[in-house]
Amino acid sequence: MSDGRPAIAPERYAARLEAAQALARGAGLGALLIGVGADLRYLTGYTALPHERLTMLVAPADGPATLVVPRLEALPALGSPAALAGAVEVLSWEETEDAVALVASLVRAAAPLGDGRGLRLAVSDRLLAMFLLRLQAELPDATWSLASGVLRGLRIRKDPEEIELLRLAAEAADRVVKAIAHGPLLGRTELDVAREVRERLVAEGHDDAEFAIVASGPESASPHHEASERTIVAGEPIVLDIGGPLGGYGSDITRTIWVTGGDPGRGPDDEFRRIHDLVRAAQLAATEAVRPGLPAEAVDAAARDVIVAGGYGPRFIHRVGHGIGLEGHEDPYLVAGNAEPLEPGMTFSIEPGIYLEGRFGVRLEDIVVCGPDGAIVLNRAPYDLLVVDG
Amino acid sequence: MSDGRPAIAPERYAARLEAAQALARGAGLGALLIGVGADLRYLTGYTALPHERLTMLVAPADGPATLVVPRLEALPALGSPAALAGAVEVLSWEETEDAVALVASLVRAAAPLGDGRGLRLAVSDRLLAMFLLRLQAELPDATWSLASGVLRGLRIRKDPEEIELLRLAAEAADRVVKAIAHGPLLGRTELDVAREVRERLVAEGHDDAEFAIVASGPESASPHHEASERTIVAGEPIVLDIGGPLGGYGSDITRTIWVTGGDPGRGPDDEFRRIHDLVRAAQLAATEAVRPGLPAEAVDAAARDVIVAGGYGPRFIHRVGHGIGLEGHEDPYLVAGNAEPLEPGMTFSIEPGIYLEGRFGVRLEDIVVCGPDGAIVLNRAPYDLLVVDG
Repeated sequence: MSDGRPAIAPERYAARLEAAQALARGAGLGALLIGVGADLRYLTGYTALPHERLTMLVAPADGPATLVVPRLEALPALGSPAALAGAVEVLSWEETEDAVALVASLVRAAAPLGDGRGLRLAVSDRLLAMFLLRLQAELPDATWSLASGVLRGLRIRKDPEEIELLRLAAEAADRVVKAIAHGPLLGRTELDVAREVRERLVAEGHDDAEFAIVASGPESASPHHEASERTIVAGEPIVLDIGGPLGGYGSDITRTIWVTGGDPGRGPDDEFRRIHDLVRAAQLAATEAVRPGLPAEAVDAAARDVIVAGGYGPRFIHRVGHGIGLEGHEDPYLVAGNAEPLEPGMTFSIEPGIYLEGRFGVRLEDIVVCGPDGAIVLNRAPYDLLVVDG
Repeated sequence: MSDGRPAIAPERYAARLEAAQALARGAGLGALLIGVGADLRYLTGYTALPHERLTMLVAPADGPATLVVPRLEALPALGSPAALAGAVEVLSWEETEDAVALVASLVRAAAPLGDGRGLRLAVSDRLLAMFLLRLQAELPDATWSLASGVLRGLRIRKDPEEIELLRLAAEAADRVVKAIAHGPLLGRTELDVAREVRERLVAEGHDDAEFAIVASGPESASPHHEASERTIVAGEPIVLDIGGPLGGYGSDITRTIWVTGGDPGRGPDDEFRRIHDLVRAAQLAATEAVRPGLPAEAVDAAARDVIVAGGYGPRFIHRVGHGIGLEGHEDPYLVAGNAEPLEPGMTFSIEPGIYLEGRFGVRLEDIVVCGPDGAIVLNRAPYDLLVVDG
């Protein structure tokens, strides 16, 4: 990475891989089998398009790790940080070879059944069924689990460079929110605004404009509304929830805008303002609750208590947040039932919302880091209800 | 869809779902379990972001199908074509419920073990391991296979509306290639050009700029090179391989450009021109070979024969093409060993290439439809080596 973005040193990947193998050993696993995705990127720095050709890191509990790749991707694999650091050997397969059989033979060679407990293997959580079922057929005596069992403890606490990338992503998304709120909005379709959001996210340095929720009028009551052909009119709200990866690390911000069309008579009514204030108070309460040692679910409860007290408890129909890093949604989940204590370096969204079906919705979302003394908020966009002419 | 894009009628989804259930019945399957992705979109018209919350179509071989969704996505699911057509019932789960257990109970209710053959279930090929392993734990007596076993026969032949969307996507990508070749290119990094490619793909109507390979100079010898910080200089080639979905259906085009910097002395030499001509001849031979009934591998062989005869056989290190539709890579694969006969309505790439490691590479790619009398080429960008000042 250049343009002022922090780089993660190749040796860091070697250290992460070693730590993962040690954890696998401790868990009695024979090997970790990691397909394309965030786990692979975390352990090796290698990114590849997810596709039907198998790319797989075979990391035995003991011994050297191998990165199995299709031949036409051998050069990028050899240029990956972990390969450059000598932490993985790259093994490429030809277009007409059976890559799954190749992985199975590596597993057999590296993880023999010596200890009488049988072969225990862990696969990356996002490995595709098309690969997992074939691996299960090739290694029928193995038992299978998810690699997050050992990797989550590593990935959940971010390095300073990872936090810096999250900050850069957040600030880029802040600028997009500001530009979109500046308008024009009136008379455009949600899809057209979403297209502008995507263009701006990429222009602001995002690798990809992963999502652009533009939910206007009654559609704002649907938290994951997909931008549609609906035209934005005066006198209604827009929930804007946008983001994507920048240098691999995600942005994810939500703000609620009100479009008046320049007519003061078409501004938000008292009820809407009260609900927006309530959502903001809930977000603030959750943010202020964050501190090391607090159970993740207590952050959810802090926001929920405010909304319940305000009379809208049943209208807050989702958890208050999710972890964010190499994946847009990852551990820790801030949800009732998750008693995992927060630790410094964890990064997550705080995004309460209230949804009145058929009428409107309001949501506010920031990305925060759990610091040693509490939350550090990465977004800088203002929280006030954005009342604009449109 | 508006803006002149063809719409796929809700009843079409109902018919597809019925056909899939009939095929599942014929294959002795108890149910199809379809996660987020192309299979789900094909059967229901429902799109959702792939994430850690389970969305799953439970389509038993006999009886009504259910679309299981997280509550915060109930409204978009209810608005999906299949739900509007009454072909699926939508069942939403709350944030703290166990969605996998809910799916398992639906399977138990809909696919009883009456016939003595045991419970046989098929999952979508791209279902994530995090869901599959949990399903296997909840339904330990079931045997598992991939839903492509029954769905590929449906998805592989495109409807006229699907072909029209592929044509619109191809023509949009053609315009992006033209704009990029127009420059400026010289002195810019590959990443900067890739950013422009992504912006233009979205501006031309793509839902998402899925990939933008910009491989300059010696990097062009790596077929899946990731755009890097390398600066483009005069006297070298650029392989441009770009695309993404438009209305859900993919574009995917490759052209090779040569940048002179305005200095005729820095044009391509005879060897480069000869290789480019050879790749074009191989592409043409493969395109002209296409006809119903021809084994898919014969299209690969038609291109390969030309390149082998030209003396570069070992430098053509990948198959000649892949199917394209709701997925960027899907059946049919045009590769040695795939004897599946081509049929009218199949759509795929034809993309031979020659790669001289450390020096340069050349690739040309179009998307074609197998018509009743042969290939119909959807791309319209010229095939000549694009020699530009840059």
